[in-house]
Amino acid sequence: MISHDTHLHIGSLLFEGVDQIDLTGPFEVLSRIPNSTYRLYGKTAEPVRDLKGLRLTPDATLADAPPLDVLHVPGGFGQEALMEDADVLAWINRQAAGAHSVFSVCTGALLCGAAGLLKDRRATTHWASFHLLPFFGAIPVNQRVVVDGNWIFAAGVTAGIDGALRLAAELRGDEAAQAIQLYMVYAPEPPFDSGTPETAPAAILAQARNSVRGITAQREQTARRVAVRLGIDVPVVGGD
Amino acid sequence: MISHDTHLHIGSLLFEGVDQIDLTGPFEVLSRIPNSTYRLYGKTAEPVRDLKGLRLTPDATLADAPPLDVLHVPGGFGQEALMEDADVLAWINRQAAGAHSVFSVCTGALLCGAAGLLKDRRATTHWASFHLLPFFGAIPVNQRVVVDGNWIFAAGVTAGIDGALRLAAELRGDEAAQAIQLYMVYAPEPPFDSGTPETAPAAILAQARNSVRGITAQREQTARRVAVRLGIDVPVVGGD
Repeated sequence: MISHDTHLHIGSLLFEGVDQIDLTGPFEVLSRIPNSTYRLYGKTAEPVRDLKGLRLTPDATLADAPPLDVLHVPGGFGQEALMEDADVLAWINRQAAGAHSVFSVCTGALLCGAAGLLKDRRATTHWASFHLLPFFGAIPVNQRVVVDGNWIFAAGVTAGIDGALRLAAELRGDEAAQAIQLYMVYAPEPPFDSGTPETAPAAILAQARNSVRGITAQREQTARRVAVRLGIDVPVVGGD
Repeated sequence: MISHDTHLHIGSLLFEGVDQIDLTGPFEVLSRIPNSTYRLYGKTAEPVRDLKGLRLTPDATLADAPPLDVLHVPGGFGQEALMEDADVLAWINRQAAGAHSVFSVCTGALLCGAAGLLKDRRATTHWASFHLLPFFGAIPVNQRVVVDGNWIFAAGVTAGIDGALRLAAELRGDEAAQAIQLYMVYAPEPPFDSGTPETAPAAILAQARNSVRGITAQREQTARRVAVRLGIDVPVVGGD
């Protein structure tokens, strides 16, 4: 836990094609961390659209970001377009190097991997991309939230809420996190038990795997190129 | 359940001072309802800011909205400024009258109440405003999600995710909702059990109640005026 007297600069990377709740789930928590400034940073200051069209506007550009105490990297298919973007990867790399905490949600982990930051790190990501983690040298851990040193990885999408509360506790103590949880009435009651590949009905999982097959194949091709660039032995992939 | 062949128009009311996750939690679900068009409607087409500064942009104005099959009304303290806004209340009233489903999240219920739509209806809202429901003639039900006929009420903030999945199941069947749940990996693991007044540590609840006292008092004054306008006997208030 950092001293409560230390003002924290918290920043999220915002990009075209983000999955909005990878950002907005954590936003609800990160914007309420005591004694902090929280901002969204984009390649430009122009609005971007999430996967499904939600328009979100950065507060500032990457170049304008101060050294961040907390770096949050969300995911969503738009991450693919940044996997070989030298400017964005350098920014992630530089910010992560100086940060107290790095927080990755969903396929934000792949971006951190492309920045060369996942080598020998215990990590997780969305179930559809989980088998790609070894391409970045990461050790895949099938948990909703994985903590490895000063890194927090949240698996898919809504896991970002759980990860952000863990991060809030790490930064400002359990009571601060509990106060935020009470405000946001986070006592979830999912109406079905279909939130993971292990619990979803088989037919639903098969359909879901099929619907992401094209995207996953594209991600795998990119991951192979990244592995070569990073000098990581390309693993045999067993996922689909 | 409506016929799967019927294209659905789904719309959320977006306003300055919304609590962003009241909108963005459901967005993740509503934007994935099969055979539908989902849009955000504002008083103007200009961007608004949520409580904590997130900039969100409407897709169109209230005047441009088609008759909606599903009306979603989020909350957040910005709702106060609309409680006596004749244009917005008339829009809610007209859209609700023709809708297959109305979905209120958090203090969105107070807005629906100000539109005169909660009389004799079983409803819920954020715990800090729960005691105000009788001012609108509603029957308060202390549940996370309350279904009353074609209305779905989600209590506070993140309850909108649970409510939206219930709504998805109502509109397109359980399997459609389960597929969305799997995509968004909604198998929550809150790190603390502090999400409701009943479970939060007493000191945290006391602090939270104190921090919303001013806002709640203001909401109560407004609710009294609304009750007079709607001809509802002003109840004795026991909350704080």
